[in-house]
Amino acid sequence: MAFQEYFPLWNKLTLPQQQRIEKALRLRQEKEGSQIHGGDSDCTGLILVKSGRLRAYILSEDGREITLYRLLPRDLCLFSASCMLHSLQFDIMIETEEESVFWIIPPDTYRALMEESAAVANYTNEIMATHFTDVMWLMEQILWKSLDKRLASFLLEEAALQGKDDIRITHEAIGRHLGSPREVMTRLLRYFQEEGWVKLARGRVQITERAKLEQLAE
Amino acid sequence: MAFQEYFPLWNKLTLPQQQRIEKALRLRQEKEGSQIHGGDSDCTGLILVKSGRLRAYILSEDGREITLYRLLPRDLCLFSASCMLHSLQFDIMIETEEESVFWIIPPDTYRALMEESAAVANYTNEIMATHFTDVMWLMEQILWKSLDKRLASFLLEEAALQGKDDIRITHEAIGRHLGSPREVMTRLLRYFQEEGWVKLARGRVQITERAKLEQLAE
Repeated sequence: MAFQEYFPLWNKLTLPQQQRIEKALRLRQEKEGSQIHGGDSDCTGLILVKSGRLRAYILSEDGREITLYRLLPRDLCLFSASCMLHSLQFDIMIETEEESVFWIIPPDTYRALMEESAAVANYTNEIMATHFTDVMWLMEQILWKSLDKRLASFLLEEAALQGKDDIRITHEAIGRHLGSPREVMTRLLRYFQEEGWVKLARGRVQITERAKLEQLAE
Repeated sequence: MAFQEYFPLWNKLTLPQQQRIEKALRLRQEKEGSQIHGGDSDCTGLILVKSGRLRAYILSEDGREITLYRLLPRDLCLFSASCMLHSLQFDIMIETEEESVFWIIPPDTYRALMEESAAVANYTNEIMATHFTDVMWLMEQILWKSLDKRLASFLLEEAALQGKDDIRITHEAIGRHLGSPREVMTRLLRYFQEEGWVKLARGRVQITERAKLEQLAE
């Protein structure tokens, strides 16, 4: 399948617009754990995912991380092209969580399209609103929810993403997603194990009582 | 001064578009402390501030608040019209912090403009990016910055907004802005007072050592 089928606005573009975007596009393939975007004055371009999974996160000065949202096939990421919008004044990092294939749309090409097409501009608005909703949800979690509830939510989400209840992930990686130290994660996971909700093994967390986690995450 | 001078896109609209927006507009005047927007299925419309000051915040289930951003003259707020964008799935509250005068643009009117005009759609993108930047800044503060640094930042910002170093605000209100209980605020403010950085009085916080607060907020 080609770009045309992944980019929902394709049929709303004029032929010259379609040609411009086709000419500017680049397809990239990256192994698990590759840094795709990050750092201050970086303006990689828009990322449209063909296959695999990517993670958008922020990084504190002392190296702590927290996951903002995931990018799955057909997802478009704007914030890897923040130079495209004058008012976008923050930096995120993006890395692959699996081997991934994705297109990069150069920021200048996309910006020009947005300026001449109300359809592209409104689509961009909807994408930004989706990311905004994710981030607001995350902020409410951080502000009002205790870490055990957040861990339960995360494990359920991760099981859905990996398509199985036997999740392949380290305590350290969970800590990076939730913005907490590994030690705190290990302590909480052991508590979950004592309660019989999960079973821990090296590099794996297996959900054994899904109903309890769902109840806690509520 | 009229709406035309406050709405930066006025000259990019066609005459029929200008007439539609003029016909749909409402001008409102509200006292300090009025609830302008909030609650679940609410879609008040876009708010364009003429004078005064408003506050956008979120509310937890158990009634705790945190300030997201302030709206000053010429600021436009999109999230009081979240029904306008399908992907915007979160709710904020808005109240006046001073007596304020503002226009309400009905969501349907604005949405129609956005769909036919790339200029309006791109302007909306920039506004959303501005709010997004504010919220990301706030999230980084909450995640990585200790409360004393956040309090110092808040007092300096508040002094700038009120145009004087003798700030009129209660400990409880500061707690609402920062998402912390009043008791915690009082304890921190007393510590600031002992250090000689502020002077406390009923309903007031006076900054006495601005340089120290600036250093802490850095």
